[in-house]
Amino acid sequence: MSQEPIIIGAGVIGLSIGWHLTQLGFKPLVIDQGLAGQETSWAAAGMVTPASEIRFGEKHLTDFFLDALHAYPAFVSAIEKISGIKTDFQQNGSLLVAIDVDDEAELTRIYDYQKELGLDVSWLSEEQALLKEPLLSKGCHGFVNAPHECHIDNRKLTLALAKAFEVGGGKLVESKKVEALHVENGRVKEITVGNETMAATCVVLATGTRSNIKGLPEILSQILRPIKGQALCLRHGDTPTLKHAVRTIHRYPVYLVPRADGRLIIGASNEEKGWDALPTAGNMLDLIYGAWKVLPLAYEMEFVETWVGHRAATRDHSPVVGPTEIEGLYTALGMYRHGIMLSPLVGKIMAERIAKGVESKYESFLNLKRFL
Amino acid sequence: MSQEPIIIGAGVIGLSIGWHLTQLGFKPLVIDQGLAGQETSWAAAGMVTPASEIRFGEKHLTDFFLDALHAYPAFVSAIEKISGIKTDFQQNGSLLVAIDVDDEAELTRIYDYQKELGLDVSWLSEEQALLKEPLLSKGCHGFVNAPHECHIDNRKLTLALAKAFEVGGGKLVESKKVEALHVENGRVKEITVGNETMAATCVVLATGTRSNIKGLPEILSQILRPIKGQALCLRHGDTPTLKHAVRTIHRYPVYLVPRADGRLIIGASNEEKGWDALPTAGNMLDLIYGAWKVLPLAYEMEFVETWVGHRAATRDHSPVVGPTEIEGLYTALGMYRHGIMLSPLVGKIMAERIAKGVESKYESFLNLKRFL
Repeated sequence: MSQEPIIIGAGVIGLSIGWHLTQLGFKPLVIDQGLAGQETSWAAAGMVTPASEIRFGEKHLTDFFLDALHAYPAFVSAIEKISGIKTDFQQNGSLLVAIDVDDEAELTRIYDYQKELGLDVSWLSEEQALLKEPLLSKGCHGFVNAPHECHIDNRKLTLALAKAFEVGGGKLVESKKVEALHVENGRVKEITVGNETMAATCVVLATGTRSNIKGLPEILSQILRPIKGQALCLRHGDTPTLKHAVRTIHRYPVYLVPRADGRLIIGASNEEKGWDALPTAGNMLDLIYGAWKVLPLAYEMEFVETWVGHRAATRDHSPVVGPTEIEGLYTALGMYRHGIMLSPLVGKIMAERIAKGVESKYESFLNLKRFL
Repeated sequence: MSQEPIIIGAGVIGLSIGWHLTQLGFKPLVIDQGLAGQETSWAAAGMVTPASEIRFGEKHLTDFFLDALHAYPAFVSAIEKISGIKTDFQQNGSLLVAIDVDDEAELTRIYDYQKELGLDVSWLSEEQALLKEPLLSKGCHGFVNAPHECHIDNRKLTLALAKAFEVGGGKLVESKKVEALHVENGRVKEITVGNETMAATCVVLATGTRSNIKGLPEILSQILRPIKGQALCLRHGDTPTLKHAVRTIHRYPVYLVPRADGRLIIGASNEEKGWDALPTAGNMLDLIYGAWKVLPLAYEMEFVETWVGHRAATRDHSPVVGPTEIEGLYTALGMYRHGIMLSPLVGKIMAERIAKGVESKYESFLNLKRFL
């Protein structure tokens, strides 16, 4: 390869690909039109919880998510060591909670499917669950424990990743927009950054929802869309309220992810509203209500902030990770709700694809070709 | 009087007293430890709605509130003219809404009492109410219209009042704390401001919840307490969502006060939490829920901000307005939820008390003596 790889987008996906490439001897360039990790990666909550992300009929994705979970501890350990930045990574399990009898029926169905897929989960009694999480509401109707699942402070992760990437020899360029991709004879030749043109033989699109670059295959704009998510942060003093990531399957579904400093992230809406970026009263109502049902203390907690993010989803809600029809052009797009969870694995398989031409076992269902 | 009157506290009450004094030929000094109008006056919503503020057994207060309402239009007109600042004053009535059948029973009881007191109110059919406010929830169970009640942008009012006061020859000193009051032979002699001492023969305490001044009668600290209130602001584009101030008597009671620029103020909690100033998730839940019940559009509205204020309440929830046992020392304290509404009338009666020795007809029940 005549030039170093160029990665467009400095979210956790772009940075992880970049960092993995540094570990394979490359000095890649990561370019972001804004600041590293400040968009979708920043808006996330930091759940690494494949068991509660299963969807009926998506077994292939669940396998992919499980591999992502298994890749996490070693990845975080390396990133923390190289960067010197702690990420509040906790691998002590997650809980999926049924609040009422309707939820219980649904949770039973999910649990049966989780067991069918061979997931490492167990059904807890209320006594067992309250021993793990004493602040949960009394009288809930079911608890599924996934004892090896994780959560992380995603904002700290982005900082640590950016640092580790640079320590590894990568070059991070922020606040520069890639305007165009130039292709010649079916292969990548140059990119235009601002007014400058730069030779390029290997370009990875890790642009998330921001893909307005001239010269990209038209199919990308047809399959990707932003899904608005609103979340909020509460606080109760400076010690964590929960020990685990907790998710409900209530009709007001929420997840609650504790932070080491006493904050609690509560998320998130899934709204088909395009680029709309306004926080709404109704979303706050639903999120706080859902959180209150499972964690009564939430009622008294300080309201710290609310924010809006946009997830990049494909038409089938699976990522597009792999090469494209243009030689030298790769995509790592469409992570939807799973960007934080997938970042170690997608970083690794993309780096190996670029460096060694290794086709991952997931490529068949993650390839852009499926939409052509 | 050998010196000009000194008013401590530049909220709407202190500024109104000051402005009324300028209209009687004085050049008073108003001192505030912070910025004019930035505490409780800022945190309010701007309702001037005595009919929905009635409490059984408080007929004397209702009369006082009604006189305050009647004083409003001329007061605002004068203040706006002198200051050149518009206050979004609207005198087009307010609505009190029963959302469900329980509310209806309670609203009926309130309405009967309002009529017994001779208030200018009428019961509207749903059709009549929706003609006035088409965005209200369909299927509400009762509406009381108080056609001559008002609302105002209280933040603009504080700005206009401060300006009118200065135009009238008053002197406003901000960010200076009055440390002590010095009394000699039963009459006010001096005040200490920072490190300086200043001669004083007439001092008005309009300090709201901030009364930590040495030398004050001890009774004041015994009868006054802060009552925490949380409110929030939503927005729906740049045109008002409602025309009137709307209040519910639901078990999640709220008021909704529109602003000319499309904002909507929703308030407010009444919490006995001392000086606690943290916004809480539970309060947002209750306020948004209450607002949503009466105005379904609230669900989709942008969440703009939330804030916390502290109202100064006395033990019997009536103000203490008038002279004290110390000659030259007056109080205009304990306005509780009614500071914006009472500002024209309290300003007027206090100015006349100071300038002419006129005892107001309310003095018997507003006097500090009742607590001695």
